[in-house]
Amino acid sequence: MGEDAFIWRRRVGFGDCDPARIAYTGKIPDFALEAIDAFWEDLLDGTNWFRMNVDLGIGCPFVHMEMDFKAPITPRTPLFCHVEPARLGTTSITFRVTGVQEERTCFVASFVAVFVREGELKKIPVPEHIRAALRGRFAHLRET
Amino acid sequence: MGEDAFIWRRRVGFGDCDPARIAYTGKIPDFALEAIDAFWEDLLDGTNWFRMNVDLGIGCPFVHMEMDFKAPITPRTPLFCHVEPARLGTTSITFRVTGVQEERTCFVASFVAVFVREGELKKIPVPEHIRAALRGRFAHLRET
Amino acid sequence: MGEDAFIWRRRVGFGDCDPARIAYTGKIPDFALEAIDAFWEDLLDGTNWFRMNVDLGIGCPFVHMEMDFKAPITPRTPLFCHVEPARLGTTSITFRVTGVQEERTCFVASFVAVFVREGELKKIPVPEHIRAALRGRFAHLRET
Amino acid sequence: MGEDAFIWRRRVGFGDCDPARIAYTGKIPDFALEAIDAFWEDLLDGTNWFRMNVDLGIGCPFVHMEMDFKAPITPRTPLFCHVEPARLGTTSITFRVTGVQEERTCFVASFVAVFVREGELKKIPVPEHIRAALRGRFAHLRET
Repeated sequence: MGEDAFIWRRRVGFGDCDPARIAYTGKIPDFALEAIDAFWEDLLDGTNWFRMNVDLGIGCPFVHMEMDFKAPITPRTPLFCHVEPARLGTTSITFRVTGVQEERTCFVASFVAVFVREGELKKIPVPEHIRAALRGRFAHLRET
Repeated sequence: MGEDAFIWRRRVGFGDCDPARIAYTGKIPDFALEAIDAFWEDLLDGTNWFRMNVDLGIGCPFVHMEMDFKAPITPRTPLFCHVEPARLGTTSITFRVTGVQEERTCFVASFVAVFVREGELKKIPVPEHIRAALRGRFAHLRET
Repeated sequence: MGEDAFIWRRRVGFGDCDPARIAYTGKIPDFALEAIDAFWEDLLDGTNWFRMNVDLGIGCPFVHMEMDFKAPITPRTPLFCHVEPARLGTTSITFRVTGVQEERTCFVASFVAVFVREGELKKIPVPEHIRAALRGRFAHLRET
Repeated sequence: MGEDAFIWRRRVGFGDCDPARIAYTGKIPDFALEAIDAFWEDLLDGTNWFRMNVDLGIGCPFVHMEMDFKAPITPRTPLFCHVEPARLGTTSITFRVTGVQEERTCFVASFVAVFVREGELKKIPVPEHIRAALRGRFAHLRET
């Protein structure tokens, strides 16, 4: 993960864990998604997914996700999710999210989302102010 | 809510909200429970519900909850949950949890939990080190 | 619970359970809410909360909930939630929801919701077609 | 998806949906996992993940997941998850899970899990009774 990744700290609670006494697998994608939502909020001065959808009429649905689970996530210590844009396309964005606890990598994930007009399924170009904000923060952003 | 309440700040995300565009009712009890789990962690130097259960063999199941919903919870601003012990019994504890967003009270809740030997259903007295920690923090703790 | 209660059967999964190896307290209100959503869908020929909100512009937010937890919920056997309207007011409805596993009562809950115009906070009278459907199904419905 | 896939029917509720008025992305992996848990329960005469862990001391953690999201999931109609073992290795199993609503494929997913002694991280061979049950049901099971 790059040095300029956004880092989202998350408490792992009792309710996040299953009878095997580790965070439940079905919760882990949601940890990563929360981190991406927080990434946007941080990058765009408060414009999280809710505001994108409801205020700006822009949707950002996912078309692909993949995750490698490297180590169990425990509620004994916080989880740090490192989020960075891996690739910015014409209408899509790929995120890399890495989950870390006490220097140990718990998961490495990749998420691909596309931009759409809210309520429609038709893709739109990445909005200019979003592209600009990404370029401003990530000097080595890969665009294709 | 009292001045010595523990305050738990929580980001409200897109995934916490429903099609009515407010936090889903079914999530709100869990916000309050997360806050109680964080309350113990703070009070007991890291001993959250997970450590109580797994390391100390103490369970703390709930026997009653009630909530008044006063105002919708929005993902536009963080939620602050104020947690304080309202009453400490021989084997039980009652919490008052108040959810606040930008000075507006969103919910007021009451939760009653009992202490048990982990894996059993038989109540045990509130462990002494827990009672002592509560007394130490909350000068006006009501014991019955 | 009455003989004419609507019964919602729900599988309890591994992911619903916590490290104490029973269903997590924070999930249980949501089990009851799912059952109420399914109750409407059954009573109103498919009009669940989603359709009420999105198609009919009617919201049904909760103002109060309370639950007594009587016995742990286990993933070894399904949970049956019995839902019945306990009282129908001018603008509100009170539900009683009882959760049962193998003849054992796990929880008894009460939920109060009000009807609103979707997106607004102002209460409206219980819509006539909903009142009629409730009267049609529940001969002894208590109206106040 | 093959003809002998196990099919898990799931109601999609109001609480599963987000402000974009479709099922929240973070819930979808969990739908697929629920279906896999139900698959085992069906195949092994009631032995779901909970019983595997708690009664048999066998864990089945995931090491990889990937999902393609093809169409939004709506609460207007049930979701059918088709589960089939795509490959059985020495210590691992790969599942293919396909989510369908009214003939429309909503997602196609692949999950890889390994068998472990519960509470340990060391892989063990697929237990013989599980291998036998899989062979018995899936004539064309690919073993490697």
